[in-house]
Amino acid sequence: QEGIEARIIEHALAGANVVRLKGGDPYVFGRGGEEVLACRAAGIPVRVIPGVTSAVSVPAAAGIPLTHRGVSHLFTVVSGHAPLSETELGHLAGLGGTIVVLMGVGTLAHLSQGLVRHGAPPTLPVAIIERGYSPGQRTTISTLGCVVTDAALAAVQSPAVLVIGEVVRLAHEGEARASEFLERAERGEFG
Amino acid sequence: QEGIEARIIEHALAGANVVRLKGGDPYVFGRGGEEVLACRAAGIPVRVIPGVTSAVSVPAAAGIPLTHRGVSHLFTVVSGHAPLSETELGHLAGLGGTIVVLMGVGTLAHLSQGLVRHGAPPTLPVAIIERGYSPGQRTTISTLGCVVTDAALAAVQSPAVLVIGEVVRLAHEGEARASEFLERAERGEFG
Repeated sequence: QEGIEARIIEHALAGANVVRLKGGDPYVFGRGGEEVLACRAAGIPVRVIPGVTSAVSVPAAAGIPLTHRGVSHLFTVVSGHAPLSETELGHLAGLGGTIVVLMGVGTLAHLSQGLVRHGAPPTLPVAIIERGYSPGQRTTISTLGCVVTDAALAAVQSPAVLVIGEVVRLAHEGEARASEFLERAERGEFG
Repeated sequence: QEGIEARIIEHALAGANVVRLKGGDPYVFGRGGEEVLACRAAGIPVRVIPGVTSAVSVPAAAGIPLTHRGVSHLFTVVSGHAPLSETELGHLAGLGGTIVVLMGVGTLAHLSQGLVRHGAPPTLPVAIIERGYSPGQRTTISTLGCVVTDAALAAVQSPAVLVIGEVVRLAHEGEARASEFLERAERGEFG
């Protein structure tokens, strides 16, 4: 990271306009803030262009809205890179809403078991979306209580985005209702 | 909302390709999920293109990263449209991290006083960003304890995005460090 910042500053001080291109949004687990502070400390003006964060876009790729009227009216985004403390797990389990975990495959057991230990229902749906928006995108649906086993059975690998919460059912509900319609259409119910 | 869904379905069933354009992201307080379910129940295939949510972009417009190493490693997004319950306020105050409030001017007093009542420090920084990315963008910086008064003094109006948390200081830190550099540059310290 320091090497990146040094190179940006070196080229900018040499008179270049430097574009630092990042995947996702630079201010959501992107270290954009660190790079901006380093530049500003060197007197280099910075303009940040917001991006589409995988915290929102990858659930969408699996058909999962983060909020939905009557289902979830808030969401929390965490990173699997920093395991949550017991205090954080407790409040996250109590808060409800949707939980999105970026880079979460490595801490799946810690997180899912921690949430259940703090009172989250073991039946709470979990979606693991691997390689979002790539040809190899795959969604594994499970529950808090079963997700460690199901992830192992499916041989889930990084990179993946996890979505925990009742909104996960909406992707399925959409599928079911569409299937029902298509079956009725095949039976000629719509003429 | 029902009228919108009916019009989308009417045109799609008539054979048109319908584009439903939304500001921000359709799955972050955008009712995109409702519209998708309505379409799928009518047998209409839908593709969702994720957008740049104001929950991330408007803080960026004010120089505020939602996560920053050593400062905040998670964030929660809530809407001012649905006032939070006491249970939610308690867990949100305890969870820490960054809190982003969309459409939050109307519930500013309920939220800020609720968080303090549940143990959040009255000195916790708050930024109110009005009209993000418009020519009239304005940021008002305050604290949980003073924000109701400061918002009234500044005659803050909707639409506005609130950011609550230590990350708010980073916008200021960036300014201060850049100012210090510029002063040193003016004194000729860098030749």
